[in-house]
Amino acid sequence: MTKPRYADLSVGKRTILTPGPVEVDPRVLRAMTTPILGQFDPEFTALMNQTSAMIRDVFRTKNERALPVDGSSRAGIEAALTAVVRPGDRVLVPVFGRFGWLLVEICQRLDAVVETMEVEWGTVFDPAAIAHAVHHKKPAVVALVHGETSTGRVQPFDGIGDACRDVGALFVVDAVATLAGVPFETDAWKVDVAVAGAQKCLSVPAGMAPVTWNDRADAVIRGRRRVEKGLRASGDSGDGDLPPIRSNYLDLAQLSDYWSPARLNHHTETTTMLYALREGLRLVLEEGLEERWTRHRLHEAAVVAGVKALGLALYGDPSCKLTVVACVTIPPGLDGDAVRAYLLDRFGVEIASSFGPLKGKIWRIGTMGYSASRFNVLHGLGALEATLIHFGVKVPAGRAVQAALDVYAEGSHD
Amino acid sequence: MTKPRYADLSVGKRTILTPGPVEVDPRVLRAMTTPILGQFDPEFTALMNQTSAMIRDVFRTKNERALPVDGSSRAGIEAALTAVVRPGDRVLVPVFGRFGWLLVEICQRLDAVVETMEVEWGTVFDPAAIAHAVHHKKPAVVALVHGETSTGRVQPFDGIGDACRDVGALFVVDAVATLAGVPFETDAWKVDVAVAGAQKCLSVPAGMAPVTWNDRADAVIRGRRRVEKGLRASGDSGDGDLPPIRSNYLDLAQLSDYWSPARLNHHTETTTMLYALREGLRLVLEEGLEERWTRHRLHEAAVVAGVKALGLALYGDPSCKLTVVACVTIPPGLDGDAVRAYLLDRFGVEIASSFGPLKGKIWRIGTMGYSASRFNVLHGLGALEATLIHFGVKVPAGRAVQAALDVYAEGSHD
Repeated sequence: MTKPRYADLSVGKRTILTPGPVEVDPRVLRAMTTPILGQFDPEFTALMNQTSAMIRDVFRTKNERALPVDGSSRAGIEAALTAVVRPGDRVLVPVFGRFGWLLVEICQRLDAVVETMEVEWGTVFDPAAIAHAVHHKKPAVVALVHGETSTGRVQPFDGIGDACRDVGALFVVDAVATLAGVPFETDAWKVDVAVAGAQKCLSVPAGMAPVTWNDRADAVIRGRRRVEKGLRASGDSGDGDLPPIRSNYLDLAQLSDYWSPARLNHHTETTTMLYALREGLRLVLEEGLEERWTRHRLHEAAVVAGVKALGLALYGDPSCKLTVVACVTIPPGLDGDAVRAYLLDRFGVEIASSFGPLKGKIWRIGTMGYSASRFNVLHGLGALEATLIHFGVKVPAGRAVQAALDVYAEGSHD
Repeated sequence: MTKPRYADLSVGKRTILTPGPVEVDPRVLRAMTTPILGQFDPEFTALMNQTSAMIRDVFRTKNERALPVDGSSRAGIEAALTAVVRPGDRVLVPVFGRFGWLLVEICQRLDAVVETMEVEWGTVFDPAAIAHAVHHKKPAVVALVHGETSTGRVQPFDGIGDACRDVGALFVVDAVATLAGVPFETDAWKVDVAVAGAQKCLSVPAGMAPVTWNDRADAVIRGRRRVEKGLRASGDSGDGDLPPIRSNYLDLAQLSDYWSPARLNHHTETTTMLYALREGLRLVLEEGLEERWTRHRLHEAAVVAGVKALGLALYGDPSCKLTVVACVTIPPGLDGDAVRAYLLDRFGVEIASSFGPLKGKIWRIGTMGYSASRFNVLHGLGALEATLIHFGVKVPAGRAVQAALDVYAEGSHD
């Protein structure tokens, strides 16, 4: 067999202004060069415990259970839903974008009876309407996206958690796009299971999904617990009374046994990703959550000012705009993907398209985590202006970057 | 809110001699510091394609489909079984250790009708007995572990793939412990779906599970394909005729759409883990698969010689010993976990215990990938000898390391 040759890994310089995966702080990348520790090495389990504590702080919760699922964000979402949704359960999913439909699809694959409610994309629900539907439908589970990156909207939660408690429903929230970028209050909002992603505002490479759940959710999860036959030393199985969770890999009952002091063996923890997540969470807590939210608002203001100065229109209802992504209407007649390809090829600037009905209609400019920086915003706006000029769009040349600079001068922030 | 402080990441020096997670080549760790690329960046999709090609080479297959599932090994195993096992399907699982029971458990959670056959732990099946059972039971799927690290055995496959084709069964194999450490021949052995792990003989941090499958398996998987509602631009759903796959995250139909030239959006690829896997596969192919198998046999011989020279007994049937792990019977009266803790604390040497009925009965010494080195074996044997002396075990002092040195002198290999 001839030995094939592949080149050394080498990548071009990029300015990533998408809603994820975003750039990663060099401190996180350096942490990833740390040598492997065994998963039951006391030094490693200490790092796991620290990571749990930091996840708890970032989610603003006193929950005992807080751990990363080893997979991308949707692994965490699927783990959360698989844990609490039993076949035949009624699940209410208010949908205001693509990721709402993802919750629907996961629940359908779990053989739940899924009830949806919809609003037009680009808007969100009056939270009273969701609370009303919860009271009326009395679902076992309410699954809701907090920040919908496909449309760039954030859903207010007032009263929804209370409504869930009124009817005994569990409130499961996808906070993938929002955690560590905009306010998210697990306990104050009475969220029973919350899931985040690594590669968005936490600014860690994709591959871990922090999850936390409270005692209400754990009552169901514990009831569905099963101990693997190959791990049982005695006849005592420790099995719960409820139907088992359908996944082994994404089984929050087994994962919490593994993350508990019992350290019951499950999968092999993804060592290097844990190093990365720990460093990313440290950076968030060192900066301070409130300070981080403020930083994201500042860069949002600069992007919005720049986009408007280019004469472009923002998509969607401004009253519910998600801070960390700006959706921009593509001027009629312009090939949005060709513009994006040119931006990437000539300037190394990456912005995103969107999905389904919005594909070709909007661009999405993300400012998340380490990518939410003056460097990125100024370079991105300048490159976008030059690209639009190249494509023959009439723009007031020079204005966008100045508009952003004005925002920074007012905000006097890096 | 006060800002909590956690220390800089810093870990002790380790010599890892377990069956995973094992040490990682510094080249792989360095690759992980490469900045993030967007998942649809042409530079990134080129890296994905190269990684596919290398997975194919390492699995010795011409299969079109070869990709990593983003999770630990069992994520790959669950993805494989979830893709091909439909509720009510008859699945035959021959069990010769803990990881056989894991296959059983995953299939049971999929509501399959699982038939098991068992041999005593420490032995394997006569492959003719498995082929006979396949002919007799006519299952839809046969799920089999190739290398069982819990007992340190490797299962011969002669005739099993043929028997599966005779009855129309799909042959799904867990090659987590064996790929890139001992011969594994996907095509020659007529394996329909094969799954490996990153953190064993590939010597990459845990977090990716390479999977490959052929057209026979794909006929089922394509039939179960569903396109997410949030991604559909038109009325055409592209849905297959068979019942959908129960998982969204671990859905091989969606994953292969994502890895195909269509690049249909699914989860966010775990960028940095992909860099790591690509570099790990490059290292395997640069070394050469046959050369790598030879290297693993050499270090096995040194460990076995050293263990015997210490007067310790090897556990299990020697005719089916798995090259990459040596199972050692713990001398009666000795606290195996106390010995392991001392080894780790004083010498930084990690060896493993085992599971279920073997817990406390055997130690497992792994020599996999980058951990399969003269440095590790000599240091590990010396530390084990010193620890046994400390615990009052009578050992012929000085002999173990000399026995290993003799093996290396004969093998004249690093």
